Amino acid sequence: MTPGPGGTWVSDENVALLTDLYELTMAASYHRHKMVQPATFDLFVRSLPEERNFLVVCGLDDALDYLENVRFEAESIAFLRSTNLFDQSFLDYLETFRFTGDVWAMREGEVAFGREPLLRVTAPLIEAQFVETFLLNMVTFQTMVASKAARVAIACAKRSFVDFSLRRDHGADAGLKAARAAFVGGASATSNVLAGHVYGIPLSGTMAHSYVMAFRHEIDAFRTYTADFGSASILLIDTFDIVEGARNAAAVALEMKARNENLRGVRIDSGDLAAGAKVVRRILDDADLSDVQVIASGDLDEHRIRDLLEADAPIDAFGVGTQLGTSGDAPSLGAAYKLVEDHEGPKIKLSTGKATIPCRKQVWRIERSGMMERDVIGHQDEKIEGRSLLHEVMSGGRRVVARGTVEAHRTACLAAVDALPEPLKALDRMAHYPVDLSPSLGELVRSMRGSGAGRSLRPTS
Amino acid sequence: MTPGPGGTWVSDENVALLTDLYELTMAASYHRHKMVQPATFDLFVRSLPEERNFLVVCGLDDALDYLENVRFEAESIAFLRSTNLFDQSFLDYLETFRFTGDVWAMREGEVAFGREPLLRVTAPLIEAQFVETFLLNMVTFQTMVASKAARVAIACAKRSFVDFSLRRDHGADAGLKAARAAFVGGASATSNVLAGHVYGIPLSGTMAHSYVMAFRHEIDAFRTYTADFGSASILLIDTFDIVEGARNAAAVALEMKARNENLRGVRIDSGDLAAGAKVVRRILDDADLSDVQVIASGDLDEHRIRDLLEADAPIDAFGVGTQLGTSGDAPSLGAAYKLVEDHEGPKIKLSTGKATIPCRKQVWRIERSGMMERDVIGHQDEKIEGRSLLHEVMSGGRRVVARGTVEAHRTACLAAVDALPEPLKALDRMAHYPVDLSPSLGELVRSMRGSGAGRSLRPTS
Repeated sequence: MTPGPGGTWVSDENVALLTDLYELTMAASYHRHKMVQPATFDLFVRSLPEERNFLVVCGLDDALDYLENVRFEAESIAFLRSTNLFDQSFLDYLETFRFTGDVWAMREGEVAFGREPLLRVTAPLIEAQFVETFLLNMVTFQTMVASKAARVAIACAKRSFVDFSLRRDHGADAGLKAARAAFVGGASATSNVLAGHVYGIPLSGTMAHSYVMAFRHEIDAFRTYTADFGSASILLIDTFDIVEGARNAAAVALEMKARNENLRGVRIDSGDLAAGAKVVRRILDDADLSDVQVIASGDLDEHRIRDLLEADAPIDAFGVGTQLGTSGDAPSLGAAYKLVEDHEGPKIKLSTGKATIPCRKQVWRIERSGMMERDVIGHQDEKIEGRSLLHEVMSGGRRVVARGTVEAHRTACLAAVDALPEPLKALDRMAHYPVDLSPSLGELVRSMRGSGAGRSLRPTS
Repeated sequence: MTPGPGGTWVSDENVALLTDLYELTMAASYHRHKMVQPATFDLFVRSLPEERNFLVVCGLDDALDYLENVRFEAESIAFLRSTNLFDQSFLDYLETFRFTGDVWAMREGEVAFGREPLLRVTAPLIEAQFVETFLLNMVTFQTMVASKAARVAIACAKRSFVDFSLRRDHGADAGLKAARAAFVGGASATSNVLAGHVYGIPLSGTMAHSYVMAFRHEIDAFRTYTADFGSASILLIDTFDIVEGARNAAAVALEMKARNENLRGVRIDSGDLAAGAKVVRRILDDADLSDVQVIASGDLDEHRIRDLLEADAPIDAFGVGTQLGTSGDAPSLGAAYKLVEDHEGPKIKLSTGKATIPCRKQVWRIERSGMMERDVIGHQDEKIEGRSLLHEVMSGGRRVVARGTVEAHRTACLAAVDALPEPLKALDRMAHYPVDLSPSLGELVRSMRGSGAGRSLRPTS
C-alpha cells in the first residue's frame, strides 16, 4: 500500500480492515463452530452527555453504504493471513463475505434519546457482530455533530451559521462528514469545498488574515478581492484594527455601489465580538451601508452565540468551527452495539452500570398537537399508540429506501427540533424527556435480571 | 462520484478539494494579480490547553505526503467551474498546480510548546496559502492525540496500554490516524486492524460481551475461544458477574495448562476496576495462575489509570479508547497557520489576542545533563546555543528525509518525554516551561507592534 497524500486513506478497498481485531477473531470462532444463527444487535447511546438534552440521528446513509458494499480484498486477506491468527477456511470465507442482513433505523434528522435503538441489525451472527466497529464509529460521530449543530441552530434563533470546522476536525473523513452532519443539524452552509461537491451543501467563504497581510495596505487587499469576487465578497476586517478595517471596508463598499455591486459582508474574528459588531455596524450604517452583513467567528459555540444575541450584538450570521466539528463540550457519545436477541430468544448483558435491554425492539413517540410528549420502547410486535421511529431500511443486505439528500435530512431535523418540548431546547439546563419501557418489556427485563445478582443468562422462563 | 462503503471517502483524487473555500478564492486572486512572491507561513499552537503541559508533534509524514502529491483532478476542476466563482485562467492553472516549496519541521515524536513553529512552509504565496487547511487538520489532530497518549503513558508508568479508540474516533480517517498517533505517543499496540496493516503497529484484541452472550454458558464461550486462539486468548469476564467470570476463566486456564497452553489474560470492563482487579487477581493466584494477566478497560484516561495504580490495583495492562482517540479533555488545539515573512520582509498580525510572531524562525532547545531547561525562538539565521528543533524536510516540493517508521517516532517521543522537567509530567498541575523570544526577535516584535494601537503593517524601519 503506497501512501498517497495524507498517508494511506481509508477506501472501499481497505475499509473491511477498519475494525477492531476482536471482530475478526470472534468471526473466525463463529465460522469454525458454524454459529450462523440469526442475531439482532441494537446500536444505542447509553445515556446522554450532561450537556445534551436530545440527540439528532445522523450518519445512517453512510452506514448503509458500508453494509451494502463492504468486501475483503485480496490485499486485506493477505494481511490477515500474515498475522497467523486465522485458518485458511476462515480466510476463504472472508473472500466471499457479504452483509446479508436486515436493518431497521431511525430516519436521519430524527430526534432521539438515551437507551433508544437508533439502528437495529438482524443478520447471521457472524455478520451482525462484524459490522459493530464501523457502525459505531460512523453513526456515533455524525450523530454527535448533528446534535451539537442543532443546539447552535437553537442559539442562532433565525440567524444562519456556517460550518467552519474543517481545520479542527479530527482528520480528513471527519472534515467531510462533520460538514454533512452540521448541515443536517441546521447549518446553512459550509466552508468545506469537498463537502459542497459531494453533498451539494452550499459553500461559503471569506478571506484569511494572510490575504490582507499579503498586500501593502489593508484597503488594497479589500479593493483587489472585491474586484475579483464582486458582490460575493466578505471582507475580514480585524487583521490590524477593527475600526480602521470597518472604515476601509465601507470605503470599498461605496466604490462598489458606484459600479452597481453590493459588498455582501464583513467578518470579525477576534476581540469583544459584541462591542466590535456594534462599532462596525455603526460605521456601515453611517455610510448608508445597512445591507452589508456583519459576520462573526472565533471560538464560537451555542452559549457564546446566545450571549452575543442577548447583548443585542448586530450580527447577521455566524461562522462556527472548532466547537461544532469536534462537539467540544461532549466530544464523544457513550454508544454501544449489543446483542439483544438470537435464535434462542432475548439476550441481556448485566455488567455493572452497562446492562442492556433485551429483545428486538421498536420505539414509539407519543405526540400531542405536534409536540413530543414521551417515547416508549417496546417489543417490535407490540401495538402501542404513537409514531414508530424505527423503519425498515435494508432487507437481505440491500437498501429498501433510497439514499436521502442532506437537504431532506436537514428539513426533517428542523421539524423534529421544532416539536421538542421547550425545556429541552434550553442550552444550559438539563431537562428530562420521558423514555419508558412498555409494561411487557419492563417485565421481561425484570425476569431476566433474576432475583439475585443477575447471573442468569436467559429469561427465567 | 458514486458513494462507496461509508459514503464518499477522501482520497488522492479529491483531497485537493478538502479545503476551505477561501483558500481557493484567495488563490484565484493571487493568480489573477500574479502575486507569486515567496512567502513563509508558520504552523503553531497559540497556547496549550489548560490540561496540557507539553505537546508531542505528530502527523508530519502525512503532511509531507500531501504536499508531495496534492493534485487537482479533472472532476475537482469541473466542480470548481460549476461554482461560477473562478475564471478559466485560474482553472487552467489548477490543472498543473503542484506544491514546489520548502518545509522545515520538528521531528515526529518531538516535545513542543505553545507559540513554537511545528512546521514552516516557504513557497510561492499561492501555494503556501493553499495548503493551510489540510496541514492544520492533519498535523493538529495527530499532535493532539499523541500528546494525550504521552500523558497516558506517564500514568501507566512501565505498564503497557493499548489503543481501543476506533469506535469512538471521529470518522474513518481519525480511526486510522488516532492509532498511529497513540502509538507514537506511547501505546504499545492497537485494536485497529487497518492501522496494524498500514503502519505495522502490533495488534491486540480480546472479545466482546456479545461473544460470551452467543453461548449458552459463559464457560462454553471461554472454552471455545481458547480452543481457537490458544495462548493468544484474553477472556472478557464481566458480562454477567465478575467473580463467576474469573472462576470460569481460571477453570479454562487450568484446562489449557494441561495441554501446555497459557491463557494470556482476562479483561474487566465495568464496575469498580480496582476492587474487581483485586478479586480477580486473588482467584487467579489461588489457582496458581499468576502468569495470567489482568487487563482493564472502560472509560479510562490518565487520571483514572493513575488512581488505579495508586490504589495498588493489580492491573497489568490497560485498554484506553474514547479519551485517548478523542483527547476528551482537550479535543482541539488552538493551532494557526500564519504568514510571517514575504519578499518585503517580516509580517505581523495584530488582532486582539491573536497576534503573531514575525519572520522566518528557528527553535532552539537548551538542555543540561540531558534534561530540558528552556526553549528559545529566534530568527532562523541567529546563532543560539542549543539544539535546533526545526529541520529541513522538504526542498522544492520533494522530501529530503525519508518517511520514518512509527517505531522510530515512538522511540523519539519516549526519549523526549523522558527529558522533560519532572513538574511537566504531572497530570493535574499546570507547569510552565520557559519559551522565550531571542532578544533580537523580541525587539523586532516590539518595533512592529509600534508605539500605538499597532496599526503599522510593516516594521517601522
